[in-house]
Amino acid sequence: MSARILVMNPNSSVQVTAAIDAAMQPLRLPGGPAIDVDRLPSGPPSIGTQQDVDGVVMKLVEWVRGDDADAFVLACFSDPGLHAVREAAIGRPVFGIAECGILRALMLGERFGIIALSGRSVQRQQRYVRQMGVAERYAGSVPVDATAGETAGETAGEAIRERLAQAGRRLAEQGADVLVLGCAGMAGHRRALEEMCGRPVVEPTQWAVVAAIGAVVLGRG
Amino acid sequence: MSARILVMNPNSSVQVTAAIDAAMQPLRLPGGPAIDVDRLPSGPPSIGTQQDVDGVVMKLVEWVRGDDADAFVLACFSDPGLHAVREAAIGRPVFGIAECGILRALMLGERFGIIALSGRSVQRQQRYVRQMGVAERYAGSVPVDATAGETAGETAGEAIRERLAQAGRRLAEQGADVLVLGCAGMAGHRRALEEMCGRPVVEPTQWAVVAAIGAVVLGRG
Amino acid sequence: MSARILVMNPNSSVQVTAAIDAAMQPLRLPGGPAIDVDRLPSGPPSIGTQQDVDGVVMKLVEWVRGDDADAFVLACFSDPGLHAVREAAIGRPVFGIAECGILRALMLGERFGIIALSGRSVQRQQRYVRQMGVAERYAGSVPVDATAGETAGETAGEAIRERLAQAGRRLAEQGADVLVLGCAGMAGHRRALEEMCGRPVVEPTQWAVVAAIGAVVLGRG
Amino acid sequence: MSARILVMNPNSSVQVTAAIDAAMQPLRLPGGPAIDVDRLPSGPPSIGTQQDVDGVVMKLVEWVRGDDADAFVLACFSDPGLHAVREAAIGRPVFGIAECGILRALMLGERFGIIALSGRSVQRQQRYVRQMGVAERYAGSVPVDATAGETAGETAGEAIRERLAQAGRRLAEQGADVLVLGCAGMAGHRRALEEMCGRPVVEPTQWAVVAAIGAVVLGRG
Amino acid sequence: MSARILVMNPNSSVQVTAAIDAAMQPLRLPGGPAIDVDRLPSGPPSIGTQQDVDGVVMKLVEWVRGDDADAFVLACFSDPGLHAVREAAIGRPVFGIAECGILRALMLGERFGIIALSGRSVQRQQRYVRQMGVAERYAGSVPVDATAGETAGETAGEAIRERLAQAGRRLAEQGADVLVLGCAGMAGHRRALEEMCGRPVVEPTQWAVVAAIGAVVLGRG
Amino acid sequence: MSARILVMNPNSSVQVTAAIDAAMQPLRLPGGPAIDVDRLPSGPPSIGTQQDVDGVVMKLVEWVRGDDADAFVLACFSDPGLHAVREAAIGRPVFGIAECGILRALMLGERFGIIALSGRSVQRQQRYVRQMGVAERYAGSVPVDATAGETAGETAGEAIRERLAQAGRRLAEQGADVLVLGCAGMAGHRRALEEMCGRPVVEPTQWAVVAAIGAVVLGRG
Repeated sequence: MSARILVMNPNSSVQVTAAIDAAMQPLRLPGGPAIDVDRLPSGPPSIGTQQDVDGVVMKLVEWVRGDDADAFVLACFSDPGLHAVREAAIGRPVFGIAECGILRALMLGERFGIIALSGRSVQRQQRYVRQMGVAERYAGSVPVDATAGETAGETAGEAIRERLAQAGRRLAEQGADVLVLGCAGMAGHRRALEEMCGRPVVEPTQWAVVAAIGAVVLGRG
Repeated sequence: MSARILVMNPNSSVQVTAAIDAAMQPLRLPGGPAIDVDRLPSGPPSIGTQQDVDGVVMKLVEWVRGDDADAFVLACFSDPGLHAVREAAIGRPVFGIAECGILRALMLGERFGIIALSGRSVQRQQRYVRQMGVAERYAGSVPVDATAGETAGETAGEAIRERLAQAGRRLAEQGADVLVLGCAGMAGHRRALEEMCGRPVVEPTQWAVVAAIGAVVLGRG
Repeated sequence: MSARILVMNPNSSVQVTAAIDAAMQPLRLPGGPAIDVDRLPSGPPSIGTQQDVDGVVMKLVEWVRGDDADAFVLACFSDPGLHAVREAAIGRPVFGIAECGILRALMLGERFGIIALSGRSVQRQQRYVRQMGVAERYAGSVPVDATAGETAGETAGEAIRERLAQAGRRLAEQGADVLVLGCAGMAGHRRALEEMCGRPVVEPTQWAVVAAIGAVVLGRG
Repeated sequence: MSARILVMNPNSSVQVTAAIDAAMQPLRLPGGPAIDVDRLPSGPPSIGTQQDVDGVVMKLVEWVRGDDADAFVLACFSDPGLHAVREAAIGRPVFGIAECGILRALMLGERFGIIALSGRSVQRQQRYVRQMGVAERYAGSVPVDATAGETAGETAGEAIRERLAQAGRRLAEQGADVLVLGCAGMAGHRRALEEMCGRPVVEPTQWAVVAAIGAVVLGRG
Repeated sequence: MSARILVMNPNSSVQVTAAIDAAMQPLRLPGGPAIDVDRLPSGPPSIGTQQDVDGVVMKLVEWVRGDDADAFVLACFSDPGLHAVREAAIGRPVFGIAECGILRALMLGERFGIIALSGRSVQRQQRYVRQMGVAERYAGSVPVDATAGETAGETAGEAIRERLAQAGRRLAEQGADVLVLGCAGMAGHRRALEEMCGRPVVEPTQWAVVAAIGAVVLGRG
Repeated sequence: MSARILVMNPNSSVQVTAAIDAAMQPLRLPGGPAIDVDRLPSGPPSIGTQQDVDGVVMKLVEWVRGDDADAFVLACFSDPGLHAVREAAIGRPVFGIAECGILRALMLGERFGIIALSGRSVQRQQRYVRQMGVAERYAGSVPVDATAGETAGETAGEAIRERLAQAGRRLAEQGADVLVLGCAGMAGHRRALEEMCGRPVVEPTQWAVVAAIGAVVLGRG
């Protein structure tokens, strides 16, 4: 099979892109589709504000129009422009990591919690969970007040992992029996957080790529 | 009072802008804020696709940054970029006509229906109603398959009014006891449709401007 | 315009009525409708029990039947008899401050909290929020254990403001990013509470009158 | 056991009261509580408008205060003043037939439908189902455009039964797999409607009295 | 009346069966149906895991097929096999104590809490409350980490009551204004817990039998 | 990779098992896990009644206990015993095709509809959709009144495909913009139905196996 999945990091961080790329390794099966990970060089270093989110949408649309990949994954937990990108991809499947990560969490527990970057992303997640129609399953979001790059280890080193675990434990106290990482940059912490929090942890980019592999192999549906 | 409300039409249609402007007339109270209506010359003629919606967001952000109005109304029923524009307005209130129109409808009946432009906007409205958390009150959307300009009378003349009424009557059969006009361009049809459909009809731009007047006069909250 | 809005305080407290009247001042626009505020002399001093609520309903119906105002506002957060009064008003719009205040809050945050008078009103608010179909957006209610008159400053002086702020801060901890004042008597505290709680605060009678102005000016819809 | 349950018909119809009384017969167990059925002579002949509903509330409160029954059943599908009457009953249990009938229906099917008196009561039922928090189980209400007395056979004879069955069959088409009679006066039609509609039918006054018997025997909880 | 209700305890505990039998005493009315309580000798000592739940279902189906009772009550808060047993009972009514207990609680407060045996049963209850469609009314479940037999007094004596009360008080703090006992074995603690927790407490087997009496006497509906 | 996924058909139909096996072909990637499909010889020929569903649960538990596969897929749209099997699998992931198929559908449209075998399975699906907490996205189920084997072509030949398409088109009229096949036996009809209904169609066993591949490759989360 010569199919190819493009994982699009809407921020410009090289370190976040590398963290995502590393997380893809187990999904690169010999007979499966190729998995390319790339960043949006003109994107912001981290997507924090709503203007950051909305500011990359048309750039992602352009990117998809100009790339012949068989499927696309938007590797930002705000799922920026998911429906506009789907229009632009004309039949080729597009996956948002928030949508995929949250739906995956529904298989692993009764109530999911999200480890969020910031208070602003918490409100965005509240809106998105309602938009998805799964609010009955939502225990809440707890922010770590960091950038995507910091969670990927750009500067904060090991300290960030403990902050992620603290957020995860607070979510567990609030009733979450499964956790979702609220940023693609957090990918490298999944297994450690499962240990530290005593809960299954969903790494959403991995899971979105699983879905993309399925869609490519099966031809939609 | 020298306050000013800016009603922003994100499409470029002169006729839609004129229809909105006419609908503002009763809201221009001697002692109240001024109400300016303008269009986005670089916007699409009508906002139909999701790319149309997302493509105007950063332009609206720019517009708000460069205008010293005291409050803003986004006069497109997709509420394009509502949260990004709110960030950019830095404390000045911003109203989306879909949000305002739907909340107004909740005061007038038990279940509201939306007269939509197209099938594509129906799906967008389904997402938005869920995002607002008011799906229990939603009877559905019925499309008329027209552009904003056509509903404003650019070309279709009286024929369009009958199509709007047909959609309204179908919504009534589906259980809607109050109707919301799903496009700012439909403003001139409100009273006629109330007669033709036997239901109260919300013109959302008018109602968003009512809210804007309140916010300007009261100073938020 | 010679239109007139009647704001009906269903309790007999002169002080609560005065607090409401003061809060109306910015809404009395030169070219806008007149805004009269009056109390129900035969009403209870404060509306606490469900019997207090239901006991004023038919009196409000009589009042509306005998007054030629163009629109009515029920200035009690229990929205007593809202639907019966609407019937009696025969086409003239009637607004409940709980309904209006809660819908306004949906524009200002993702999850609203209500500063309530008593535990009994908390249960009433839980029922009402469900009846409105907006429970997904509700963070909860916290009571201050006071009467309407006490919140309006009849006896408690400044002490009551701190209690209101405590309730507001507890709601913020419970996830409320916008607060609603759960009694018309609390009107004078809005701006101060915004400072003290770090959250937008909705004064519901003001907002119901904004809606009434809109309805009067626009002629329903 | 010398306990006594009072079934209160809030309308003044002798025929409706007789229909309710007849429906109580199987519930009068030798060792169980006595079951008295009475009407509110000062009530309206039928409860149709919201003013009819709200107009009887304080009269029901008075009635309960002056009667030493051990439990009370409000035999009107609008559950008029349920919470005020509960306050006035001071610890003695009070049951509303709408609440009891709807909860019973949840045991008999996945989605219940209500055979309603009028369009006005349909809207009331929509509000009440939301207030109860069971809207996910609600298939809808269909009105027969009759008064309580007509459904009890005051004038309409057999013709009314066919109209009730038509409403029931329409609800079945809308997805209802269990029906609730939306008026105490319809009590005599239950078994016939089960045959005619092919669905279990809940007679709500009977079921509310079952609950009252349980509460009296068990002492709450 | 020679009708008979069979209360089926799906676990094999003699002590739990005795606790249930004792709780039935006030419901054995002279003129009412006989109430037999029995246990499943081949059932597990306590139902904790999901395999315990699912492992008894076909045994309950067999039991019902071989017993000529007029109505059945499944006396385990997991409502094991409720729908399969209903099929097997061919027209004779079958009641699950969780379903009945939860619906009863909806009449007594705005938000119910469940005193659960274990963390595992908490997750089961979360699923069941959603399945019932009443999650808007659910304050949560708190486990006591005990077996059915322990709550019935097999070994733990008075100590267990205090643990039940602690769980009840924690639920009250989480907003529950009515409590449901999450195991048939807890039946003997109801009145004491009402005192200790300051909330009405529903004993679900009693209430399911109330419903069964009603169904037997009325002939369904 | 020497991992192995076991797809368990809980009915005994050889033809259904063959249809499932054929649908797995594209998912057997050279470098991916092996995919075995087998049937439960002691299962019923088709799973129709609730007793059929519950009757296979403990057999599936036994099967999983005795098989060393790395992941399991329950290939029956009733997801029989999903949580009991998960317990028995002790850490090895287990997927239900209804859960996976429905979650997949949420990525492809706003409202999903299910092509069901029978009216009985419709009620089961209504319960399950509520249990999953996704009822806001559910347009409904329409039955074809067939057995699993018939949909797999045991007897009905091409006629069955037209009946499936009719159900799909009726769901589309009811607002479904994506369809889910409600039986593993329908697998061979997916592509044809997409054409015939003009909607994306989810084949749930395929999609559950996609998820199983992901889980095996990633090691949970």
